[in-house]
Amino acid sequence: MRAEQNQLLTQTDPGTPMGELFRRYWLPALLADELPEPDCAPVRVRMLGEKLIAFRDTQNRLGLMDEFCAHRGVSLWFGRNEEGGLRCSYHGWKYDASGQCVEIPSEPGNPKLCQRVKLKSYPLVERGGVLWTYMGPPESRPPLPEHEWAMVPAANRFISKRWQECNWLQAMEGGIDSSHVSFLHRHTMKVDPMFKGATQSHKYNLGDLAPHFEVVESPGGLYIGARRNAENDRYYWRITQYVLPSFTLIPPRGDHPIGGHCWVPIDDENCWAWSTNHHATRALTREEREAMEAGKGIHVPLIPGTFRPVANKDNDYLMDRRAQTEGRSFSGVEGFAMQDASVQESMGPIQDRTKENLVPTDKGIIMARRLLIAGAEGVAKGIRPPGVDPAHTRVRSASVILPKDVAFQEAAERALLPEPGSAHATV
Amino acid sequence: MRAEQNQLLTQTDPGTPMGELFRRYWLPALLADELPEPDCAPVRVRMLGEKLIAFRDTQNRLGLMDEFCAHRGVSLWFGRNEEGGLRCSYHGWKYDASGQCVEIPSEPGNPKLCQRVKLKSYPLVERGGVLWTYMGPPESRPPLPEHEWAMVPAANRFISKRWQECNWLQAMEGGIDSSHVSFLHRHTMKVDPMFKGATQSHKYNLGDLAPHFEVVESPGGLYIGARRNAENDRYYWRITQYVLPSFTLIPPRGDHPIGGHCWVPIDDENCWAWSTNHHATRALTREEREAMEAGKGIHVPLIPGTFRPVANKDNDYLMDRRAQTEGRSFSGVEGFAMQDASVQESMGPIQDRTKENLVPTDKGIIMARRLLIAGAEGVAKGIRPPGVDPAHTRVRSASVILPKDVAFQEAAERALLPEPGSAHATV
Amino acid sequence: MRAEQNQLLTQTDPGTPMGELFRRYWLPALLADELPEPDCAPVRVRMLGEKLIAFRDTQNRLGLMDEFCAHRGVSLWFGRNEEGGLRCSYHGWKYDASGQCVEIPSEPGNPKLCQRVKLKSYPLVERGGVLWTYMGPPESRPPLPEHEWAMVPAANRFISKRWQECNWLQAMEGGIDSSHVSFLHRHTMKVDPMFKGATQSHKYNLGDLAPHFEVVESPGGLYIGARRNAENDRYYWRITQYVLPSFTLIPPRGDHPIGGHCWVPIDDENCWAWSTNHHATRALTREEREAMEAGKGIHVPLIPGTFRPVANKDNDYLMDRRAQTEGRSFSGVEGFAMQDASVQESMGPIQDRTKENLVPTDKGIIMARRLLIAGAEGVAKGIRPPGVDPAHTRVRSASVILPKDVAFQEAAERALLPEPGSAHATV
Repeated sequence: MRAEQNQLLTQTDPGTPMGELFRRYWLPALLADELPEPDCAPVRVRMLGEKLIAFRDTQNRLGLMDEFCAHRGVSLWFGRNEEGGLRCSYHGWKYDASGQCVEIPSEPGNPKLCQRVKLKSYPLVERGGVLWTYMGPPESRPPLPEHEWAMVPAANRFISKRWQECNWLQAMEGGIDSSHVSFLHRHTMKVDPMFKGATQSHKYNLGDLAPHFEVVESPGGLYIGARRNAENDRYYWRITQYVLPSFTLIPPRGDHPIGGHCWVPIDDENCWAWSTNHHATRALTREEREAMEAGKGIHVPLIPGTFRPVANKDNDYLMDRRAQTEGRSFSGVEGFAMQDASVQESMGPIQDRTKENLVPTDKGIIMARRLLIAGAEGVAKGIRPPGVDPAHTRVRSASVILPKDVAFQEAAERALLPEPGSAHATV
Repeated sequence: MRAEQNQLLTQTDPGTPMGELFRRYWLPALLADELPEPDCAPVRVRMLGEKLIAFRDTQNRLGLMDEFCAHRGVSLWFGRNEEGGLRCSYHGWKYDASGQCVEIPSEPGNPKLCQRVKLKSYPLVERGGVLWTYMGPPESRPPLPEHEWAMVPAANRFISKRWQECNWLQAMEGGIDSSHVSFLHRHTMKVDPMFKGATQSHKYNLGDLAPHFEVVESPGGLYIGARRNAENDRYYWRITQYVLPSFTLIPPRGDHPIGGHCWVPIDDENCWAWSTNHHATRALTREEREAMEAGKGIHVPLIPGTFRPVANKDNDYLMDRRAQTEGRSFSGVEGFAMQDASVQESMGPIQDRTKENLVPTDKGIIMARRLLIAGAEGVAKGIRPPGVDPAHTRVRSASVILPKDVAFQEAAERALLPEPGSAHATV
Repeated sequence: MRAEQNQLLTQTDPGTPMGELFRRYWLPALLADELPEPDCAPVRVRMLGEKLIAFRDTQNRLGLMDEFCAHRGVSLWFGRNEEGGLRCSYHGWKYDASGQCVEIPSEPGNPKLCQRVKLKSYPLVERGGVLWTYMGPPESRPPLPEHEWAMVPAANRFISKRWQECNWLQAMEGGIDSSHVSFLHRHTMKVDPMFKGATQSHKYNLGDLAPHFEVVESPGGLYIGARRNAENDRYYWRITQYVLPSFTLIPPRGDHPIGGHCWVPIDDENCWAWSTNHHATRALTREEREAMEAGKGIHVPLIPGTFRPVANKDNDYLMDRRAQTEGRSFSGVEGFAMQDASVQESMGPIQDRTKENLVPTDKGIIMARRLLIAGAEGVAKGIRPPGVDPAHTRVRSASVILPKDVAFQEAAERALLPEPGSAHATV
């Protein structure tokens, strides 16, 4: 890869091609419970290189706007969230949830001045326990996305987010790269409460350590199929969903909830890693919910009051060499998410892709990059990118057993583009 | 404002126009008790982007000079302050308080070599509990300034300094911006021991929340008048003093001491905030002094052994959201100074003034910037800037009640340019 | 010195002239006990601006290679050191000690792919308690060096290393600068267990505080002679060895072991300071070894688990002003090494040599810089630099008493270029 391509893929500040592509999608901005009630504390939001402030006003309206007061640049994080707006604590200028200035106390007789002042703002909408925003041109704004994890009843899902200290792309590339699972996560898969017990799945996975990958375009991104041998002249397929710009779904195992991710750039050297679990047809059990709250599965224990993992690069992810050499852990780092984060962050703040050596199992990564570059170039020409249409987000990952002579994307079509409320296709 | 103007106003390293303007004034460098006795420990001083070392020699002479030994660049902070000079601990080169090298131990037979070595140095003079320096061309050096707080008996004043983590200008602009007082400091004013009890003052201040500002040039800077309605067809005027380059005096309330500030650039992203209280005609009471030592009024509790406030940007200024929402504090930050510092530092290391939206109450800020730009441009042409003459510093802030039909600067002239030893004009 | 010369001398990243000079020598990379046994934990190595990983494989082979996996750039520090190679924990790619990829698990049928993948690697060889590497062109690789401290029996030597937070050159210049000893280390020399008791040496050193320096080229660098008056029309000579690029030996005192240093650039603003003590003809005593382990002599107490000194720039080197003013320490910093490190680091990350004022006692520094510049320029022209030949490293420092009318390098030749196993020439 040339350095210019790596820059194009990794830079998402305003005005960059990839930044403009990201700005065509609704993206997770906050957990709904970060703004739990009217007039609660405002929250700083950093996304796509922009510094924003989010708040929930007295009338329960959600606002997401420029963090800094239009007057003299003071952070509205210090503001007062009161009586239908956020009031700067310096001179009392007040803004409503749309960013419109509604009061300049020193100029009571000059309403026009006040009307002319409006902060840059973005819509902020709650769906599925997440507050979503759209940061692109209003005329291109699509309907809200319909990722299944956001559409099922609250009892059927669990969502967390964590700060990851590297560029979004190397994080996301881990999410569409099923081939690392048998290595990095080898031991964790057997013992983690969110994975263990899927005996059929484990049998196939451990029975064939060199799966064949087939990747095909889907309406909103990619179907990434990993094929292993099964009994009776059949294949065991694990099909990962990738939906632009950065949503993924992990193929299910047994009756476990489906896991998914979304990576949202904070700036070019940091991203939010969103992790979701949901079950299409049942509520999560108390054991499942407690395990996820304790940081099991794809979730992580966080430093209280922050979204930074307890295991992080400043403490070498609490790497346990003895656990590694004694075979209790493949990498010595505990938990799926921190295993991923540790290796991904170790690549440096922005992976230098001019030095990599890709192999056939990286096919999903290669095709995702192509879709992203094409999408960014398309946006510059006025073309709507894949994944914007809500229908493109109504997809599901699947693990299925199919005859050898069929194309997985056709044979598993109903599993990949399911009827809402239907059961997961899983082995 | 154009970006070039913002740079001109905020950059004070050697060779910058604003740096040259600052170098025409005596500026506070250290508290006198930072160098408490002969041969005490030398102190690192960072001012206007220069790294200096201050010391008090055996004969009680004060020195302020380049921090680094002329020989091989070692910091003289590690030096020995002994027998009339500061000796580098590496090879024993010794300097007197003027920066003159007085001994090169390895070259006892070569006094000329030693004589040729002289560190850049600046005068350091004690006045009013402060060690002042002048960093400009010797031929332009004015007499010492006569700010009243530095001229009254020691018993009548209290001085502190703190590190503020932003450019000097946004800090100083807070000091000449009376309009924020009714917001940011609204509650603190009622409860702080250094402010409370001035019932007349509070009555007028709360009775008219949209004061009218009149700003006029003074000999050394600006008179910034804030006018509110009083009884009997009269006005209540609060008149702030601004003296170039960065001295301000807050209008008094009742018999409370007058408060003042000076902001001295450390580098372009940090400054020293000096805070003074003094009373022209009486000693401070024990209660007043204890309150100020405890960080009340315009002073702050500091991390012991440092000049960094206990509440600072790394802990979000110990913001107390409950105090804010319950109305015990307007901003949730405790204390006048940290309320100011929190909003000013939140603008970023250097406020981007190309994005601001000024209003009529910012008149003082606008005029101060004009004076500063004119002063810097004048210095480049050899013109002496305002505020250099000690007479320009013999000013006082005031709060007065005046008939409606008089110009405040004329009617209050004796309050603003007082006889030394006279009482404050205060309401 | 011109800024370009300072850059040339201080920059050692790949492709820089000084970096290419350093790459013609075997350099200490790790203490042997950092890789204590087969399949132990790999260790990150930063040298000359390169990020490397060192490991000892199952067969006891030592490897030093690019830290990052050739596949997708993951740090091999997270890898598994097992079965004759280091396996990346992400996708299981495995490398042997030469950096050759020996397994790509996802491509079992494609051995050619694997053979084409080879990480940049350097030889890593144990000698004298140290793992040495050579980072230059293979065709220019010389035989291993034979510094005496690395050749004596293990019982006769002690080696430590510490992280120094400045450019390598200002650290090394302290090592060839005998003239600072009478100042910076004045008191420590009298009380440190590794120095005290050398009464003859102290008598001469304190009897003549302005020694005369004579510096002459040696086969591999410089002989730096410091001459003081002795009895009977004779001179007391202390002769420091400097061997390119950055090895020094301190003249011995009495029967104490000889001390030595080597400075290895980590990057341009950090270096490793290696400290060695050895005795040519006897084992170190238990008292000597315990003292060095406790951080006495030229060694330092380290923060456990790191190579960072307990006294460092973040705590002002635990400077004790009272010890300084009361004369128990010249600089107030404890220990030879931290006295050196404190003044050297205080020069800034890279000393600005355009501002220094050198004097005759800096002759060794001046000549060392000339050798380094000439060496770097020579390498660019294909000329083998001094110090590369192992014979150039078979040198020893000495302290001797000589008649006044002889050239020290000739009269002391046998002391400076000794027979292996002979006794130190010392006073």
